[in-house]
Amino acid sequence: MTVTYLNARKAPLDIARELASEFARTAVDRDAQGGTPKAERDRLRQSGLLALSIPAALGGLGASWSETFEVVREFARVDSSIGHVFGFHHLMLATVRLFARPEQWQTWFKLTASHNWFWGNTLNPLDTRTVSKGRNGWREFSGQKSFCSGANDSEMLIASAVDEAADGKLLIAAIPSGRTGITLHNDWHNMGQRQTDSGSVTFKRVRVEESDLLLDPGPLSTPFACLRPLIAQLHFANIFLGIAEGAFEEARQYTLKETRPWFRSGVENNTQDPYVLSHYGDFWVGLESTRMLVERAGQVLDDAWAKGPALTSEERGAVAIAIATAKVAASRNGLELCSKVFEVTGARATHASVALDRHWRNLRTQSLHDPLDYKLHELGDWALNGTPPIPTFYS
Amino acid sequence: MTVTYLNARKAPLDIARELASEFARTAVDRDAQGGTPKAERDRLRQSGLLALSIPAALGGLGASWSETFEVVREFARVDSSIGHVFGFHHLMLATVRLFARPEQWQTWFKLTASHNWFWGNTLNPLDTRTVSKGRNGWREFSGQKSFCSGANDSEMLIASAVDEAADGKLLIAAIPSGRTGITLHNDWHNMGQRQTDSGSVTFKRVRVEESDLLLDPGPLSTPFACLRPLIAQLHFANIFLGIAEGAFEEARQYTLKETRPWFRSGVENNTQDPYVLSHYGDFWVGLESTRMLVERAGQVLDDAWAKGPALTSEERGAVAIAIATAKVAASRNGLELCSKVFEVTGARATHASVALDRHWRNLRTQSLHDPLDYKLHELGDWALNGTPPIPTFYS
Amino acid sequence: MTVTYLNARKAPLDIARELASEFARTAVDRDAQGGTPKAERDRLRQSGLLALSIPAALGGLGASWSETFEVVREFARVDSSIGHVFGFHHLMLATVRLFARPEQWQTWFKLTASHNWFWGNTLNPLDTRTVSKGRNGWREFSGQKSFCSGANDSEMLIASAVDEAADGKLLIAAIPSGRTGITLHNDWHNMGQRQTDSGSVTFKRVRVEESDLLLDPGPLSTPFACLRPLIAQLHFANIFLGIAEGAFEEARQYTLKETRPWFRSGVENNTQDPYVLSHYGDFWVGLESTRMLVERAGQVLDDAWAKGPALTSEERGAVAIAIATAKVAASRNGLELCSKVFEVTGARATHASVALDRHWRNLRTQSLHDPLDYKLHELGDWALNGTPPIPTFYS
Amino acid sequence: MTVTYLNARKAPLDIARELASEFARTAVDRDAQGGTPKAERDRLRQSGLLALSIPAALGGLGASWSETFEVVREFARVDSSIGHVFGFHHLMLATVRLFARPEQWQTWFKLTASHNWFWGNTLNPLDTRTVSKGRNGWREFSGQKSFCSGANDSEMLIASAVDEAADGKLLIAAIPSGRTGITLHNDWHNMGQRQTDSGSVTFKRVRVEESDLLLDPGPLSTPFACLRPLIAQLHFANIFLGIAEGAFEEARQYTLKETRPWFRSGVENNTQDPYVLSHYGDFWVGLESTRMLVERAGQVLDDAWAKGPALTSEERGAVAIAIATAKVAASRNGLELCSKVFEVTGARATHASVALDRHWRNLRTQSLHDPLDYKLHELGDWALNGTPPIPTFYS
Repeated sequence: MTVTYLNARKAPLDIARELASEFARTAVDRDAQGGTPKAERDRLRQSGLLALSIPAALGGLGASWSETFEVVREFARVDSSIGHVFGFHHLMLATVRLFARPEQWQTWFKLTASHNWFWGNTLNPLDTRTVSKGRNGWREFSGQKSFCSGANDSEMLIASAVDEAADGKLLIAAIPSGRTGITLHNDWHNMGQRQTDSGSVTFKRVRVEESDLLLDPGPLSTPFACLRPLIAQLHFANIFLGIAEGAFEEARQYTLKETRPWFRSGVENNTQDPYVLSHYGDFWVGLESTRMLVERAGQVLDDAWAKGPALTSEERGAVAIAIATAKVAASRNGLELCSKVFEVTGARATHASVALDRHWRNLRTQSLHDPLDYKLHELGDWALNGTPPIPTFYS
Repeated sequence: MTVTYLNARKAPLDIARELASEFARTAVDRDAQGGTPKAERDRLRQSGLLALSIPAALGGLGASWSETFEVVREFARVDSSIGHVFGFHHLMLATVRLFARPEQWQTWFKLTASHNWFWGNTLNPLDTRTVSKGRNGWREFSGQKSFCSGANDSEMLIASAVDEAADGKLLIAAIPSGRTGITLHNDWHNMGQRQTDSGSVTFKRVRVEESDLLLDPGPLSTPFACLRPLIAQLHFANIFLGIAEGAFEEARQYTLKETRPWFRSGVENNTQDPYVLSHYGDFWVGLESTRMLVERAGQVLDDAWAKGPALTSEERGAVAIAIATAKVAASRNGLELCSKVFEVTGARATHASVALDRHWRNLRTQSLHDPLDYKLHELGDWALNGTPPIPTFYS
Repeated sequence: MTVTYLNARKAPLDIARELASEFARTAVDRDAQGGTPKAERDRLRQSGLLALSIPAALGGLGASWSETFEVVREFARVDSSIGHVFGFHHLMLATVRLFARPEQWQTWFKLTASHNWFWGNTLNPLDTRTVSKGRNGWREFSGQKSFCSGANDSEMLIASAVDEAADGKLLIAAIPSGRTGITLHNDWHNMGQRQTDSGSVTFKRVRVEESDLLLDPGPLSTPFACLRPLIAQLHFANIFLGIAEGAFEEARQYTLKETRPWFRSGVENNTQDPYVLSHYGDFWVGLESTRMLVERAGQVLDDAWAKGPALTSEERGAVAIAIATAKVAASRNGLELCSKVFEVTGARATHASVALDRHWRNLRTQSLHDPLDYKLHELGDWALNGTPPIPTFYS
Repeated sequence: MTVTYLNARKAPLDIARELASEFARTAVDRDAQGGTPKAERDRLRQSGLLALSIPAALGGLGASWSETFEVVREFARVDSSIGHVFGFHHLMLATVRLFARPEQWQTWFKLTASHNWFWGNTLNPLDTRTVSKGRNGWREFSGQKSFCSGANDSEMLIASAVDEAADGKLLIAAIPSGRTGITLHNDWHNMGQRQTDSGSVTFKRVRVEESDLLLDPGPLSTPFACLRPLIAQLHFANIFLGIAEGAFEEARQYTLKETRPWFRSGVENNTQDPYVLSHYGDFWVGLESTRMLVERAGQVLDDAWAKGPALTSEERGAVAIAIATAKVAASRNGLELCSKVFEVTGARATHASVALDRHWRNLRTQSLHDPLDYKLHELGDWALNGTPPIPTFYS
């Protein structure tokens, strides 16, 4: 496989834009089909963007989180399934970076950059059906996992299991997707995010070496390691914002090119209808609010990331709040926009070929990763009591 | 074809409930497939319910509009496509009742009751592409029509054309669906209301006799005749309410049977989660508000209907306001509920087999029949200026 | 004191309308002043309306709760302080009716009707500072009470105390306001409902006879007795609705008579501004939703009241739900309307002489009687789990 | 008068904080009284902050608009009347800076800085009752003006009149407040912003010299000059945000120190009530959204200001959009917060001594300066059609 796009003259965002415009052509059809976007995943491999967040010293493009998420949004605008698996790939990389020893993650980073590996997710801390049994110097993971985004067609997996021997302690490992005993079920058939392959996986006596395990410093072990769930949360906020921006732009083109004024409106062109303008004004305020919060959260994360292990609990708390705020706004404003755009496009925009509903379906699906109500609870505890969120895999 | 269900011992609503429970079993699959629900339409024919709103003296079940809409809602809760074509069938009957001479509509009513005819819609006053040319004592309709709900698999059609000879005057006719020159395209492939066959129809020199035309008293000719668009509007309100009730009940069963408490909630059972309860409280208030307004509007319509041609403009205005109020509430509260139910079911309820998104897709699609913004405009003109809506095919 | 208004020819609602129109003239000034509306209270005494809910057999006007609340709303539209103390007077009568023996309440009813007594409130179950000590055959109430609406200038009080001897059991008594040891503080100086005298009261060794106590059947002792808090809750819903209707009507007159079109609106008259009309449409839908729910709740209460002691727990639960639904809608829709009316009146309507803000202040103040969030919680428990509210003094 | 506060060691924001904390002590009482806050205005004079936005070269503190508005917000949090007249003072200075010749505004700036002049507003472009008649080399302004914020107790006024001789052209002048013929009426008695003196002014043959007139480049004459209304709009956004921040902080202190858990909540401390936390989460998201938009708009304005007369129409359009977005969000989020804070403080917080309602009254009053609906219209025209707002005194 040759990297055809990437070269010294092209910025990652430009590469992403070209790819996005390519993905956009088939996005509606692929939403209908579901399944694995194999061709698009290979284009991502070829593009070099799978090394986007990997430091240049290890062969990557050295992008900051803000830059990485800018690319995630670029994809999410036209194809939020690809946006999601792409962003989650970088989250998996962050997982080894934060939970493992340098010799581990540096090796994985180099291999990923040089081989354009795609990483998938079989880490789901609330799904405790997969268990780890100790063997002679190695372990065996057995059981089921749900919501395994991007596991299909991946080279590497982040997997978790409950340690039988240690009171249910969570063990996390980085393992090749092709390892014996791993069965990826092609059973993601959901109302939205239809090409994320977020179905289930079975582990049957999968051998996990000590060197596969992320034990030092280990999951959520330090304030810096606790950035991992925050990266996930900010990833979601970017996906939501990207979806909303995509829905806005499609609706806008539809209003401009396809709609006619309502016969009682008294205007010559629907683009001057007072209610249509009022809706677009609402959309704009919602989008701009979200953009500001999401971008600010990206900067706050970049600053925290730059501090590395020196990051304090208090500083980590501030990142958590900035990101939770962005996520709540992105989720609410996005859902509202994706449902209301139809008011400015009218009935004909419900045709399946327009697929304008996919934005609502995608955002609605992805926004259920963890409850919005408990994000507001956390923000309230901060706003009222000054208490930052307790780090968990969801906060 | 034998009417197997209907008999002296069974009330129409009971028949509807049995049918609805039957339709419910396949509704999710049929939503995925789209197309004409032929088997279900035949069950409606067999049930006798196609004569629901036809006076008993003409062989029908003599139901009031409130009773007719109760059946529409019963269907809409599980299958809003069927709810829609069923309600529109009765709207087509109302159209001949209100716009034609007694000898015309009485004949059509009797034939409909005795043969279990299904009526479909090819009346679309804003789509002026179909033109009527005068011939020797008859007319010829030629052109296109969009949004022809229930035209497929129907025995009779309500069709409209612009009269070339009379300054674009709207002509409406009742004609057999099989008449030469009528082509029903199977091209409704939209994001919601997927089995309503609301696609396009071509008329090619279709012969229309004087006796097919609804000329006396004619469309929107008297306050009583002007009830026709209001029946359509109240039909929509009932569809929206039925959809919301269906979404609520499916979500409720899912919350009760499938969900687990969030790990930070501190409750043993998700059904005691304070935020889950708060959402259900919101849903309840929205549903109850809508139910009250929709039922009141039905009573107001029944009263106006009973007055017949004696109905005054002012009385018709009051009906219009009651119905517009109900429709706005049903549309807004319904859309909100259909999007928010996911907050109380969680991510697993996005699986395609649950198809919980179809409620939002159905309501969002059907709610675009005419702009909500202009309904609010009308209500505002009433509330502020005391001006009732000017009768049109949408008000 | 002579009853000048009441006579065989005048319906209570007509009397109320005359009084309301009288009160309206000074309502703005009295809102500014606060304090006790002595003159208006005396007009209520003279009107005979203090006997409104008292059965005719006992000298009253025999109004149902629906009729009583219709009068409450009539007052609340122009002066919600008077609406509140008037409605609470009837709530106090309901309290003795439901908690005491027939010979007790019949006597009090007769005296109230014949002497035009005004009853005030010193019952506040959450404020446990007033304690009852047993004496030889009588008791002594001592302590403080807050939120004692209508206690000033009253003839009778409903008072409560915690029984020292019986594990803090709540004792409720009906006592003359002038009894030795009762000090009514004129200390209600709040942002809204400024003439409700909802300040504090001190009891200092107030002698309470056994015959003053409401012991049989006693507070919240039976499903029928448990209607008492529901009457209070529906009273609030009526107050909120009345306030909103008053705000709407004042705003409407202002828009019609005082406003000019915005210079960029393109309309000749502000009453045709599309956004102004849209706001009025919103107001209308909110008001109509509330009206339907409040009126339905009144009918449900009337039915339950008519059942008397035969009322079952389940039936009482249904009343509780109907009333809670109405109250939530009235509170939310009312607050929204009272804040948004300014969008349709403009800046000049903020002049103190217009006092359009008093509606928001009054509704905001009164709506805090008990938390809306916990009403939604109750409704959610009903909607999801089918569990009716547990009867308390707030549910 | 000596400047006691300002010295080399104290930053303007620190001075503002000290003053704000001083103003806070009497803000509730002064809200009740209304009228001119003479003592506080003199403290502002003494503080040196009236020269805040004046370039250092002319004797001022050289603050940017962002810095100036930071001080406005500091005041608005505790006393939005003072925040308003203070910000409007700087808007009046911007008016001469943008509409007059350098020799004019530089002189006025120097005098203002050295004498701590306070500027007031008698410019109201929509109120055309004041007319300018030409005389021999001078003009005479005669007529009425409404909404003259900060005119009382000012040294200088910005006044406008319609030029009789030039087709109603708007003339703007800077004149001493004490000039013969000017009568400031103390007639601002409104529901909010009660110490802004926004009442009426009468001009009776007031002599206006050519050198008083702002003719070159003149009102709204260039893109740069057209920043004037945008500064006004951003001033409002800052006032709204400051009010909301003040309301939030007062509510927070009240919740923390004064509230008790609801008896059905199951929590020991009201600060852990799930619904209370959820409300605070909502407040936080609203405040943060607004803060981001308001701060960004400040930066955008600073950049545009720095460009001076080189500013293009297109660049001015971008400033207009950033500011309109911020203003809409500040108005909506602020009104919502100021009404909802009562849900987290409860009924006792309605006591007049808490005066928590003043935030809603202040924001509601000030937010009516120009219609929010038409700001959304402008934003919609931008979002949909890419059309920037047409410069007027309100856009």
